[in-house]
Amino acid sequence: MTPHPRLTGPVRVIGTGLVGTSIGLALARLGVAVQLVDADADAVAMAERIGAGARLAAGDPEPQVVVVAVPPDHVGAAVAAQLAATRTAVVTDACSVKSKPLADAAALTAADDLARYVGSHPMAGSERSGPLAGRADLFDGATWAVTPHPASDPDAVGVVQLLAEACGAKPVRLTAADHDLAVARVSHLPHLLSSLAAGTLVDAPSEHLELSGQGLRDVTRVAGGDPGLWTQIVSANTGALTVLLEQIRAELDRVLVALGKNSGNGDITAVLAHGVTGAARVPGKHGAPHTEHATVQVIIPDRPGQLAKLIADAAESGANVEDLRIDHSPGRPVGHVELAVKPDSVEQLVAVLTARGWVVHR
Amino acid sequence: MTPHPRLTGPVRVIGTGLVGTSIGLALARLGVAVQLVDADADAVAMAERIGAGARLAAGDPEPQVVVVAVPPDHVGAAVAAQLAATRTAVVTDACSVKSKPLADAAALTAADDLARYVGSHPMAGSERSGPLAGRADLFDGATWAVTPHPASDPDAVGVVQLLAEACGAKPVRLTAADHDLAVARVSHLPHLLSSLAAGTLVDAPSEHLELSGQGLRDVTRVAGGDPGLWTQIVSANTGALTVLLEQIRAELDRVLVALGKNSGNGDITAVLAHGVTGAARVPGKHGAPHTEHATVQVIIPDRPGQLAKLIADAAESGANVEDLRIDHSPGRPVGHVELAVKPDSVEQLVAVLTARGWVVHR
Repeated sequence: MTPHPRLTGPVRVIGTGLVGTSIGLALARLGVAVQLVDADADAVAMAERIGAGARLAAGDPEPQVVVVAVPPDHVGAAVAAQLAATRTAVVTDACSVKSKPLADAAALTAADDLARYVGSHPMAGSERSGPLAGRADLFDGATWAVTPHPASDPDAVGVVQLLAEACGAKPVRLTAADHDLAVARVSHLPHLLSSLAAGTLVDAPSEHLELSGQGLRDVTRVAGGDPGLWTQIVSANTGALTVLLEQIRAELDRVLVALGKNSGNGDITAVLAHGVTGAARVPGKHGAPHTEHATVQVIIPDRPGQLAKLIADAAESGANVEDLRIDHSPGRPVGHVELAVKPDSVEQLVAVLTARGWVVHR
Repeated sequence: MTPHPRLTGPVRVIGTGLVGTSIGLALARLGVAVQLVDADADAVAMAERIGAGARLAAGDPEPQVVVVAVPPDHVGAAVAAQLAATRTAVVTDACSVKSKPLADAAALTAADDLARYVGSHPMAGSERSGPLAGRADLFDGATWAVTPHPASDPDAVGVVQLLAEACGAKPVRLTAADHDLAVARVSHLPHLLSSLAAGTLVDAPSEHLELSGQGLRDVTRVAGGDPGLWTQIVSANTGALTVLLEQIRAELDRVLVALGKNSGNGDITAVLAHGVTGAARVPGKHGAPHTEHATVQVIIPDRPGQLAKLIADAAESGANVEDLRIDHSPGRPVGHVELAVKPDSVEQLVAVLTARGWVVHR
């Protein structure tokens, strides 16, 4: 095996779930030695079988890095245990919150050893879990937050950044507190609000749901996530989340008062307009300042092969489809497909699709 | 012009925005005469030019149906005015709330005339507005709520159902109160929660947004809607929305208390699990009881023509792509495409794609 030029390994992975196994697979493709540990013997055997590394054996060398990839509730203690069990290894974790694991580990660890700990959080996941969902490319191009504490050894920080890069990700450095506020904003709070919106549907008569459209599907999608895992994530980010939830409650009260007095429409408009401004800051397709795509709507009959024909026709017009969205409404015999392309491709795309019989709208 | 076999017309459309113009276009394709009215002379001229009907002229016959398609705040008064201006015409509207327009119209109308009014709400729209956004197929396959009041003439109800069918939609009958509760649940409340989630991003540092993913894009998408229009919609549905918002506030308080005492994880799990149950009731792609699609993940390089090649390869495997979702993360050089197909196509699809060099995951 050719060692990776900078990350020399071995890397010890504690916890062979989706994330741990994927880290093992990503490093194995570079020839970095990976030592696998999991309390569940079946999980470690599966991770080993699919090529994520080799089960840790007596006499294995001290690792260069330990990655703790266990459920949020257990991260701090596991980090402390790994710092105690090694002498020189850098220890990091992959937990989706950062302040609490740091505090938990610090409470159990001597200051000297704590210098070898640098938190991190690869921003990639899947709706699936377990070692068999592991993928060598899970982190390709993803953001990987690296969150040193004030006493983290700078060399240890460098090693964790190398680890992130070796896994194909782009390291972004933040403090633990800043990270936790960021993920509260971009992930934990949206998840909770999605759950609350979805929760109101539990007792709704079926005919109410017949009136639903794409908006409801979008808002409630993330609410489908595993409640056990999300309880741990949310509970470990109490501080940041409480601040935001109190803000939301104040806004909600403002809307309720405005609805109650039936004359405070200015307050409702303010909340909605604030939302428009915020939505425009979300990177990626929708409303983002960086995207320069134009969209074209196409009616597509619900028959086999129509989507393939549409995409082939679009490609032949010379337009590259940058994004695509299918709006299926319940029981609808036709779909609307939204194609996103570069603005200078639109004229030609519309001309070619129209000439080939598609019903096209800009 | 050949008259539509059952809806004989003429149909008078008051308000030539997106919805009014689309109704005109849909009826015009069946040869039903459409009389167009709008306070804005330019708007009515544009609607006429694209074939949505003819501007109402002195001496035009009494219509069979009047459709009031003006902004929510003005619907009740406009309905009353149309009932006063006609003797036999059925009057309906296309407003996205139903109790308030009914109450407003009833306050201004004699009981005899009110029997000719039947509310309705076509459940289709677009992020665009104005007559030029009008489309003859806007309502094809969509649900169209029909909301008679207790004294609505049964024949008038029948005519409004015919109108909905003539526009290509599927009429669903509800009371006004039931309709308003339904849309509060499936549209107005999710919109407000999306706005609140998006609003927390306004003051976020840019590096916080670098940690965002598809979940945030989904939850905040609808928050981009026009705040003026949404203020009118929300303000006209005070009753139903207040009940739901108070429910949300109670749940939010429950989460805040649980976070505060750091020991009430059961309450957090309950809110999240309730959300999972609700999300599973949403019709359409995600978590719906009716869909029987299996999904396959494919890694797609960000190069021109790759999506077209993927879809063509998928089609050649014999699988019909029922739905498709592209996950672009910011700055990511590769994308993940999720293809939804019938479960019995999965084996063959994966085999063909893998043989052709795609990186595929189930």
